[in-house]
Amino acid sequence: MRALERAEILSIGSELTVGETRDTNAGDLARELTAHGVEVVRLAALPDDLPAVRDAFDAALERADLAVSTGGLGPTPDDLTRESIAALVGETPAVDPGLDAWLTDLFERRGLPFPDANRKQAWLIPSATAIPNDGGTAPGWWVDRADGKVIVALPGPPREMRPMWHDWVLPRLEARGLGRPTAVANLRTSGLGESLIAEKLGSLLDRDANPTVATYARTDAVDVRISAVDAGGRPAA
Amino acid sequence: MRALERAEILSIGSELTVGETRDTNAGDLARELTAHGVEVVRLAALPDDLPAVRDAFDAALERADLAVSTGGLGPTPDDLTRESIAALVGETPAVDPGLDAWLTDLFERRGLPFPDANRKQAWLIPSATAIPNDGGTAPGWWVDRADGKVIVALPGPPREMRPMWHDWVLPRLEARGLGRPTAVANLRTSGLGESLIAEKLGSLLDRDANPTVATYARTDAVDVRISAVDAGGRPAA
Repeated sequence: MRALERAEILSIGSELTVGETRDTNAGDLARELTAHGVEVVRLAALPDDLPAVRDAFDAALERADLAVSTGGLGPTPDDLTRESIAALVGETPAVDPGLDAWLTDLFERRGLPFPDANRKQAWLIPSATAIPNDGGTAPGWWVDRADGKVIVALPGPPREMRPMWHDWVLPRLEARGLGRPTAVANLRTSGLGESLIAEKLGSLLDRDANPTVATYARTDAVDVRISAVDAGGRPAA
Repeated sequence: MRALERAEILSIGSELTVGETRDTNAGDLARELTAHGVEVVRLAALPDDLPAVRDAFDAALERADLAVSTGGLGPTPDDLTRESIAALVGETPAVDPGLDAWLTDLFERRGLPFPDANRKQAWLIPSATAIPNDGGTAPGWWVDRADGKVIVALPGPPREMRPMWHDWVLPRLEARGLGRPTAVANLRTSGLGESLIAEKLGSLLDRDANPTVATYARTDAVDVRISAVDAGGRPAA
């Protein structure tokens, strides 16, 4: 199986593209993936629009080996992540009996009627495995594409997304094989502008070097980020 | 001239795709554009990589009339927004004498040597107009494409970006013609799950209606967002 070396992160929901909600999931996942040796090539936020989401997954898996999405797994008609992934891989969702029993039981234990709209949260497609959600009614999907690429779809609420990521997704990604571990150090400088610091760093800023060194102008200082990829044989610096 | 009805927002910088820095610009601009009647079709964060940024601008202007970027206008070799836009429109950047004089003077007044690296912050291309920056050394670019579409490139630091947006960019976008003004109201509900609320709202959730109504599950409640587009003739509800 191919290692998952490059990833793209999709955040799905019109509340993001109208600027009403600020996304924290993409940044959290970007940091996680980077630390585990996966190069994150893009983060994107998309509206609740099936063709837009399907096309974004499609383009993401052109550029990367792994697409991780958050959001769009709710029960309402504008939650379209499952439909978008099914359209992309050309499969038809169907109610999974195991998920359906779990969901029915969940509503029963909460003493609530089971709304018909929620039944789509029990959907699976043949190439998807359900990712258990202990904190809500939206299981995630792990989808193995025929070409060896992977889609991971997680719900948007961070208190549901985070444990699903840590406890279920990450161990499976690691078992599957990721890129090379990366060690990162940030140095805060003072007294010089970014261009003078860059002048002093000279060829260290060469983008193909390992470790790579980059400068970032902050409001009050310039940060120098040193990122070393484990080249094998020796531990990363 | 075509009205600018759809926009895409690009946030440029590897600090975003590695998750070290959390972007606030894209959400702020999404909210601004939405309030001014522009439909935001996507937000994307990109690494400091010329082909990736050029391709993202290209795809954005396929989908939208306006691409607004933040970041990548610094003086260092990994600041590649100008180069990416120039590559996209097929023009060669050259030092603009007016910008060069302004920048030289700025360093003189600060009592600092003028580093050669900063000279690219005085670059323009024939189709670009400089957007003045009173808070830093990075002027923005307003680029009129031959097809009537527009690129606006702003620096990443919010304290520079925000006044440039409000004082210079927004008035010009409005003069140019935007979409239809949109009025938004958010109602917080309590006591019911998202699917039961959606059931009660019924056909109000029809995506092609005006106003559009959508539900959003929050940590502690479900919000109902009502968004009315001015259909002309009467004020938006």
